[in-house]
Amino acid sequence: MGSDSDLPVMEQAATFLADHGVVYEMTVASAHRTPARASRLAAGAEKRGIQVVIAGAGMAAHLAGVLAAHTILPVIGVPIDASPLSGMDALLSTVQMPPGIPVATVAVGKAGAKNAAVLALQILARSDARLATRLHEMKKTMDRQVQQKARRLQAASKRGASKARS
Amino acid sequence: MGSDSDLPVMEQAATFLADHGVVYEMTVASAHRTPARASRLAAGAEKRGIQVVIAGAGMAAHLAGVLAAHTILPVIGVPIDASPLSGMDALLSTVQMPPGIPVATVAVGKAGAKNAAVLALQILARSDARLATRLHEMKKTMDRQVQQKARRLQAASKRGASKARS
Amino acid sequence: MGSDSDLPVMEQAATFLADHGVVYEMTVASAHRTPARASRLAAGAEKRGIQVVIAGAGMAAHLAGVLAAHTILPVIGVPIDASPLSGMDALLSTVQMPPGIPVATVAVGKAGAKNAAVLALQILARSDARLATRLHEMKKTMDRQVQQKARRLQAASKRGASKARS
Amino acid sequence: MGSDSDLPVMEQAATFLADHGVVYEMTVASAHRTPARASRLAAGAEKRGIQVVIAGAGMAAHLAGVLAAHTILPVIGVPIDASPLSGMDALLSTVQMPPGIPVATVAVGKAGAKNAAVLALQILARSDARLATRLHEMKKTMDRQVQQKARRLQAASKRGASKARS
Amino acid sequence: MGSDSDLPVMEQAATFLADHGVVYEMTVASAHRTPARASRLAAGAEKRGIQVVIAGAGMAAHLAGVLAAHTILPVIGVPIDASPLSGMDALLSTVQMPPGIPVATVAVGKAGAKNAAVLALQILARSDARLATRLHEMKKTMDRQVQQKARRLQAASKRGASKARS
Amino acid sequence: MGSDSDLPVMEQAATFLADHGVVYEMTVASAHRTPARASRLAAGAEKRGIQVVIAGAGMAAHLAGVLAAHTILPVIGVPIDASPLSGMDALLSTVQMPPGIPVATVAVGKAGAKNAAVLALQILARSDARLATRLHEMKKTMDRQVQQKARRLQAASKRGASKARS
Amino acid sequence: MGSDSDLPVMEQAATFLADHGVVYEMTVASAHRTPARASRLAAGAEKRGIQVVIAGAGMAAHLAGVLAAHTILPVIGVPIDASPLSGMDALLSTVQMPPGIPVATVAVGKAGAKNAAVLALQILARSDARLATRLHEMKKTMDRQVQQKARRLQAASKRGASKARS
Amino acid sequence: MGSDSDLPVMEQAATFLADHGVVYEMTVASAHRTPARASRLAAGAEKRGIQVVIAGAGMAAHLAGVLAAHTILPVIGVPIDASPLSGMDALLSTVQMPPGIPVATVAVGKAGAKNAAVLALQILARSDARLATRLHEMKKTMDRQVQQKARRLQAASKRGASKARS
Repeated sequence: MGSDSDLPVMEQAATFLADHGVVYEMTVASAHRTPARASRLAAGAEKRGIQVVIAGAGMAAHLAGVLAAHTILPVIGVPIDASPLSGMDALLSTVQMPPGIPVATVAVGKAGAKNAAVLALQILARSDARLATRLHEMKKTMDRQVQQKARRLQAASKRGASKARS
Repeated sequence: MGSDSDLPVMEQAATFLADHGVVYEMTVASAHRTPARASRLAAGAEKRGIQVVIAGAGMAAHLAGVLAAHTILPVIGVPIDASPLSGMDALLSTVQMPPGIPVATVAVGKAGAKNAAVLALQILARSDARLATRLHEMKKTMDRQVQQKARRLQAASKRGASKARS
Repeated sequence: MGSDSDLPVMEQAATFLADHGVVYEMTVASAHRTPARASRLAAGAEKRGIQVVIAGAGMAAHLAGVLAAHTILPVIGVPIDASPLSGMDALLSTVQMPPGIPVATVAVGKAGAKNAAVLALQILARSDARLATRLHEMKKTMDRQVQQKARRLQAASKRGASKARS
Repeated sequence: MGSDSDLPVMEQAATFLADHGVVYEMTVASAHRTPARASRLAAGAEKRGIQVVIAGAGMAAHLAGVLAAHTILPVIGVPIDASPLSGMDALLSTVQMPPGIPVATVAVGKAGAKNAAVLALQILARSDARLATRLHEMKKTMDRQVQQKARRLQAASKRGASKARS
Repeated sequence: MGSDSDLPVMEQAATFLADHGVVYEMTVASAHRTPARASRLAAGAEKRGIQVVIAGAGMAAHLAGVLAAHTILPVIGVPIDASPLSGMDALLSTVQMPPGIPVATVAVGKAGAKNAAVLALQILARSDARLATRLHEMKKTMDRQVQQKARRLQAASKRGASKARS
Repeated sequence: MGSDSDLPVMEQAATFLADHGVVYEMTVASAHRTPARASRLAAGAEKRGIQVVIAGAGMAAHLAGVLAAHTILPVIGVPIDASPLSGMDALLSTVQMPPGIPVATVAVGKAGAKNAAVLALQILARSDARLATRLHEMKKTMDRQVQQKARRLQAASKRGASKARS
Repeated sequence: MGSDSDLPVMEQAATFLADHGVVYEMTVASAHRTPARASRLAAGAEKRGIQVVIAGAGMAAHLAGVLAAHTILPVIGVPIDASPLSGMDALLSTVQMPPGIPVATVAVGKAGAKNAAVLALQILARSDARLATRLHEMKKTMDRQVQQKARRLQAASKRGASKARS
Repeated sequence: MGSDSDLPVMEQAATFLADHGVVYEMTVASAHRTPARASRLAAGAEKRGIQVVIAGAGMAAHLAGVLAAHTILPVIGVPIDASPLSGMDALLSTVQMPPGIPVATVAVGKAGAKNAAVLALQILARSDARLATRLHEMKKTMDRQVQQKARRLQAASKRGASKARS
């Protein structure tokens, strides 16, 4: 992440990865305040056995793009809402990459941070059957959870409906 | 609705329908977490005698569009303000449907949720004279309420004006 | 429509209605240049047996809202791209209606105009089985057309793929 | 104003007018909930001796435009921030009027409400020398107030500067 | 106007004023390239008998605001679409004036330029009965023109409708 | 892709994949016109040995999200500029996915389509050393090409500079 | 600054300058409420030995542009988030200057205010070796601070990772 | 500049510098395609006697920020309109820099490119009296040119006015 103030957002990703048994490293590296560090981390990542990079940053969010410039690993960008412009600045700075250097951009803020981790799992699952199974289970769990919530709401709805009918 | 966190917004619609004696069902179905459920609900709605579908969702609000893809019933979409982007994401995701599959989009948030119910009543009233009468009464009530508020404000205004004149 | 310059957009709706055997009237009425005419048309529409109103307008697109103020019929609003602001002005002016007076808003421009007609058909089909059948057929035709296009593209794709493999 | 919930914004205008001895009326009239009332007020305003109309409304803010459609008086529009879209909806709905029916639009929210009253005074001052004098005095007062604030800040600034120099 | 490249837009205002017998002056004065000239023109306008100021400018459109700073005359601002940002820059720069110094802002581009002239007429008409009559006539003419266009369209519409019916 | 009108954009991806020896399938499937087909394609993709899905769509671009709902494969979304709203609608509809169902979003239009293919290669390269080598070569080629362009420009620049110095 | 309500933002700049031993003056001057004062300050700045001007303003933020019109000194503009439009109004009003009169614009709000001071230092450092040294030290300090934060986060991350592995 | 396709925009800066006798280098360096080259150029610029850096880039315009990360020289950023999002992406990516690393941002496109050169001159003029004189002359020339244009327009205006009077 570009700053430790991004932690409350980015720990959504960390928690998800930890919960699914994915080994990860979490650090701070700024495209602007520590450019050499950011370049070095990205350039060395493939050699160190890292498979996917997740970068979260706000404002003129250059971090994901700068990392992508230094590695052939997939780089996932999380735009963070950290200025009066509501994260639109970070979204456009992250997603509008020029031809040749993609950043896989996800939603602004916490929803995006969690999804960055899910996307990382999906990428890792291409060569890890255990993770693929995990993802299939997760899809079923989500389905089940929504159905539970639906049942609760429908009960209320039926009561509302019968009240309306009477 | 796409998530039970949308309930505080969508219950504006439910309350209105209940108040006007319209039988309704309320449930949760996510275009992304329970796509089969969403498709099934929409595809079976016409057979089960449902006349109008109201879908409320935030962020990349695909629910209304996905339901509309599976039914010939009118689908009303309520964009919900559920991300740092203030509901502009949900509005554009709901309204910008491609030719052939309309979503009748209303305002972002609670005002839109209530209006979804009013619009549903207007559609139902095309073949239900009782509801048409209800809607005419509602228009008169709104007119009366605004006039009452106007009288109160005007009294204050006149006092202000006479103060200014003196 | 608010101006006859909107005709190239709004005739998308007219053509669709004519193609599906729906009797319609098309006229110009400006919320700002002919407010009395617009009010009268809307206020008298229900009595004259009109079932659905479609309003297309650009810029500060008040037409749909003004018509909706004078009728309990469903009013469908088509925002038209008629200023340097790309139709965002017309979209927000049409969709952001206050509680009590909905406008069923569709996409900006030609896609929206066609969808306004489809939505009108969906509403009419609630009490006209022939139109419901039409809409089901239309859904099948769309599906078939996409599949035809898909086959053509896939043929090209397979050639591309075999070229890549060799 | 379009709703009595707009009062906290619009009373900025009322206070300013009262402070400068301008006789005004303040009322609620909705372009959508009381269209006949809004039209009647606007259409009759000139005859009743009203010189300038100020309309404040939020969301799809049609009020100013609808009033302007019914009168040749100058109509000043105050876009009000009353939805998740931050007043951008009200701004575009108010300012983007079609040729022939202008609305003199001011800033979103309280600043705009006050400025609507100042603009009204400027218009009235075209045929009222007393008000012209008032406006010249107001300009001088603003200048003086800013200079006072400047002196206070500069004192602090000099202390800061001397601290820096030492 | 801020630049002679704004002439194609601003001559909409000039033509309208000339057509309605209003004496006007048209000149170029840039808030940034000729600030002294802009200030002097505005500061001296009232003395020279000018009643209303119209300012058209694009990009960071400061002209209207700068003129308003130097005069108590009503200043009408026309935002001009003169950059890749589609006039949104000029609109916000013109309309979002701070409390005390209003600019009566109209629509972006040519529609706005014409409306600036109409608004000027409405202001002048407050003390010129001939202009008030002109404005009432103009309203009737607009109404008539729209009705003519409506009749033409309706003829076409009826043909379309009868074709649909057969 | 959601429509065959998206082909001029999406063939940027196809060409890149073909050039790098990646076997791909290209087809049309609309989230709204052929929802069953879109669901079936996505649900069956993993079994058929597909590793990555690329979805390009415009307007309320639901295709990528709908595919992602039915598969655990990484889904890359290309927002296409296909409405008056300049692709902002497609961008927000694609990127703002809710927690649990990510879409790896790239830039709007042709640049994004090419980058979708590059990102797919980066994902495939996680388990294909030949592709990793290809990507490293591609990075070197890009670097070389930019340097060539730089040399040409610098020559011109030096001439400009010496002209300035003389 | 344009108003003393901008002080909480602009003191970010003052503090930074004081901390780095740069002599500065801080005052209030409004482009609209005290235009003569603003012009005079800017026009006289060069003679008084001022090297760089920093202007912070919100809404239709004309201050920086108006100062730039009256001086050949570099003018740095800080857009301030002071209206419901989130500072987008101030940003576009500050940055979109016409050819010939640049404003060096920085980020919206406090981050921008601090950066205005850093940029001023960078400009002054062109002829002040002591400041250049200061800036090099500042870059090192930023790098060090980020690395410290990184170490703390990495420690947490490693614990998370080992927890995940077990 | 980030790409040689930016040349038509950036040569506005080059021409201006050449016209005013400023020695400059012009080259291509991409923050994403040649990150090492970009870093090296920026890091070595101060030593090579460069005084100001101008960076023009489109889309997710990271170039200016990346250069600023590697140098204490003032970096001027020109956002270029090079995507369907009209340069809003480049503007936000350039201007919204985090605290500590400013980019002096100018307007989108050609106007900005020219102004980048003017701003560079203003910075250089802080220690080069010849350039300060040049800038004063330039201000006078601009004033004169506007006045000439004004005279031409006013002549036309007077004819228009007399026509209106007759």
